[in-house]
Amino acid sequence: MSKPSIPQGTRDFSPEVVRKRQYVFDTLRAIFELYGFQPLETPAMENLTTLTGKYGEEGDRLIFKILNNGLHEKNEADKTQLNTEWEKLLSKPYTTPVVTERALRYDLTIPFARYVVMHQNDLALPFRRYQMQPVWRADRPQKGRYREFWQCDADVVGSKSLINEAELLSIYLSAFTQLKVPVTVKINSRKLLQGIAEVCGQPEKMTDITIALDKLDKIGWTGVASELLERGIDDNAINILKEIISIEGTNHAKLEVLTTVMQNSIAGIEGVKEIEQALSYYEAMKSETIDDNSYIDVDISLARGLNYYTGVIVEVVCNDPKIKMGSIGGGGRYDDLTGLFGLKGLSGVGVSFGIDRIYDVIEELGAFPKQLATGSKAIIVNFGGENEAYALTILRQLREVGIATEMYPDAAKFDKQMKYANKRNVAYVLLPGDEERQKGMISVKNFETGEQKMMTLTDAVYLLNNR
Amino acid sequence: MSKPSIPQGTRDFSPEVVRKRQYVFDTLRAIFELYGFQPLETPAMENLTTLTGKYGEEGDRLIFKILNNGLHEKNEADKTQLNTEWEKLLSKPYTTPVVTERALRYDLTIPFARYVVMHQNDLALPFRRYQMQPVWRADRPQKGRYREFWQCDADVVGSKSLINEAELLSIYLSAFTQLKVPVTVKINSRKLLQGIAEVCGQPEKMTDITIALDKLDKIGWTGVASELLERGIDDNAINILKEIISIEGTNHAKLEVLTTVMQNSIAGIEGVKEIEQALSYYEAMKSETIDDNSYIDVDISLARGLNYYTGVIVEVVCNDPKIKMGSIGGGGRYDDLTGLFGLKGLSGVGVSFGIDRIYDVIEELGAFPKQLATGSKAIIVNFGGENEAYALTILRQLREVGIATEMYPDAAKFDKQMKYANKRNVAYVLLPGDEERQKGMISVKNFETGEQKMMTLTDAVYLLNNR
Repeated sequence: MSKPSIPQGTRDFSPEVVRKRQYVFDTLRAIFELYGFQPLETPAMENLTTLTGKYGEEGDRLIFKILNNGLHEKNEADKTQLNTEWEKLLSKPYTTPVVTERALRYDLTIPFARYVVMHQNDLALPFRRYQMQPVWRADRPQKGRYREFWQCDADVVGSKSLINEAELLSIYLSAFTQLKVPVTVKINSRKLLQGIAEVCGQPEKMTDITIALDKLDKIGWTGVASELLERGIDDNAINILKEIISIEGTNHAKLEVLTTVMQNSIAGIEGVKEIEQALSYYEAMKSETIDDNSYIDVDISLARGLNYYTGVIVEVVCNDPKIKMGSIGGGGRYDDLTGLFGLKGLSGVGVSFGIDRIYDVIEELGAFPKQLATGSKAIIVNFGGENEAYALTILRQLREVGIATEMYPDAAKFDKQMKYANKRNVAYVLLPGDEERQKGMISVKNFETGEQKMMTLTDAVYLLNNR
Repeated sequence: MSKPSIPQGTRDFSPEVVRKRQYVFDTLRAIFELYGFQPLETPAMENLTTLTGKYGEEGDRLIFKILNNGLHEKNEADKTQLNTEWEKLLSKPYTTPVVTERALRYDLTIPFARYVVMHQNDLALPFRRYQMQPVWRADRPQKGRYREFWQCDADVVGSKSLINEAELLSIYLSAFTQLKVPVTVKINSRKLLQGIAEVCGQPEKMTDITIALDKLDKIGWTGVASELLERGIDDNAINILKEIISIEGTNHAKLEVLTTVMQNSIAGIEGVKEIEQALSYYEAMKSETIDDNSYIDVDISLARGLNYYTGVIVEVVCNDPKIKMGSIGGGGRYDDLTGLFGLKGLSGVGVSFGIDRIYDVIEELGAFPKQLATGSKAIIVNFGGENEAYALTILRQLREVGIATEMYPDAAKFDKQMKYANKRNVAYVLLPGDEERQKGMISVKNFETGEQKMMTLTDAVYLLNNR
């Protein structure tokens, strides 16, 4: 029998990893609930027609499709049988797809839009929902890229107010403050990008300009300038762009200069005003507990998926110098998502948390709470016979006061039990032997220091609780 | 455009449902952790070879298989193209399956066994794990039976001690006590069933006898007796069985009589002793907070999946007379689960919680905590202009003391905002108008009573917190 394995690009999550991931999910969930967002969960499977045509040609190729019933392949290909089944499938009158009509969720946005359209008559609008579920993509697996990974989205549909943008900024900063990850949230506007193209005298070149600007972080201004040239942007425009890019100072100062620069572009002015308004709402609702090392930064080189967003766009990066990692979150305003399913005119805005990357960042920063590392606080050694019965009463009492405790189930050799406790990485081992049982006490061994002391159960509870 | 839909047998979980399900998962998770069980998560996709041959022929048919890349079917079947792709697939030299080599998780037990075998060198044994994840089966959907549903399992592998059985009994009773579901946990042993067949003089008929006995609840003794006859059990055996079935009294009394009845069967005696020992361990660790209306009941008509279990078996039913529902949990001891993947001699014992059914029972009993029904405690009305800015400071302060609050993002008509608050089912609406702003106070409207009062924010916090 060959050693079992799991499919490429998928992962088993060991206990320690599940606990850390649970901590991230719980932290985010608590914040979403505090902000009045409501949880939604959609099925892993969607009808294939719901998904196709929504993610571009490349996306369609990467959707995992589920085989309809009808083709049965054994380990060794029985080609004759398969061919017979195939012909039978194809000979039927065509009503539904013969090979596949269901597929695995590719992101959380399309299922959300599908849900809103299906429930448009009973949803209270604006609808604020969050969703934290796995998605599947048949991408080539590589470091940090999986075929099964988790997304976490928060969206508001049915309101154009910039208070929503501010709420989402506030959620980002509160969440990363609580997760102890210092971040910069970059903010820009698709309208401002349109304005920049107009001010440069090349409004039709907006996409080219933003694609080039998007690389500023990576290739610097010289690189961007030569890419702009290649893309047919003229010298005059490049000079104007250089000036716009060089605008420095506080967000307020940057926006003031941009107002002047954009004075002849209606889109540009609107973009500046929207950013200004969103930031001003954010200031009014900003929590006092936000990490001092986290910032919001107006960044006109920020592009994101331009064909999708229509207003304010944001992106989150960790600003700790130790961390070399791209964006760990992003989002923006979109004007017509549900239009894909026939419901027009519903504006929305949303942000996404990149759970797998956020996990890696917290790990690298050493910012996971220590108590997540192990489950049980103590393990009770099993000395068998009467001592076993005594041990069970200790076990019961510790659990009754809420201390996670386990007992070695077999009266195995002492060394074996200690080896187990060591592997399980618990803080304390409890030793209910003859003397302890007769005195009605318990010996507590601190596994880190090696120190051991006999005490009453009340004292043991106090000790375990105060670790 | 046709109205979007979701695949048959799958469900969207609306906010209220997600919160209630989360409450069930959180309750179970807290108990598992208290008992020193560790969380595990495995991928939705497994290699098809990991799953096939483990669930019987019927099971194999119900596994959802994932299509390998290679067959592209559009909405309208382009049969010529599909055929070309098909021939291309089949003409390749056969190394791996051409149609499908991955499939969706069918239960949590096989992935757990697979995980244990893959990690046998670094796992601390006994390994106590819990797992709460969805599984998928291509069953015909019907009321209460879904194609995507949730399982929640707790298992211990690597220990034969009956303390494990007792721990799992204790977990069942603690969990259902906390969920406010009164239950009867039926307990039996596969060895005792073997013993019964021996005592009846028909040891080779054990399977027939247990299949018939299993129906006692549904068809009564007369029905069971005639099924036994049909299955070729002789009159003498049927009379002995009738006597065994009629044994009444406390668990202790039943076990005492069974000891006498089983005196000539080694398996039978061992079965009785194991149940006795598990119950005695359970009594020693039993929490004092267990619901008075919940019981453990020795029930020799309990059968469960016989070919799988080898020792003690258990099953949970809700004993509230209002509830008409089969088992909401079950499990038992199995001697060689990991043997399927080449790791022999590892004994295990586990229990399962039927999440979807448990949810339905809690719902019918009206036992979900009331505060789960809605997310936000209060909604702030948006009166626009200066009042909007004032409202944002109220919003910030309420969230800072942990009160889940949302604000209507647009300065829409009052009626529209109240209609929204009504639909969202919140307890309070806060009204920051001109007067409130000028006085630095807030009007609080109790949505249930209609009562409205202006007060300081401190008083409002007190009121909202004490609801």
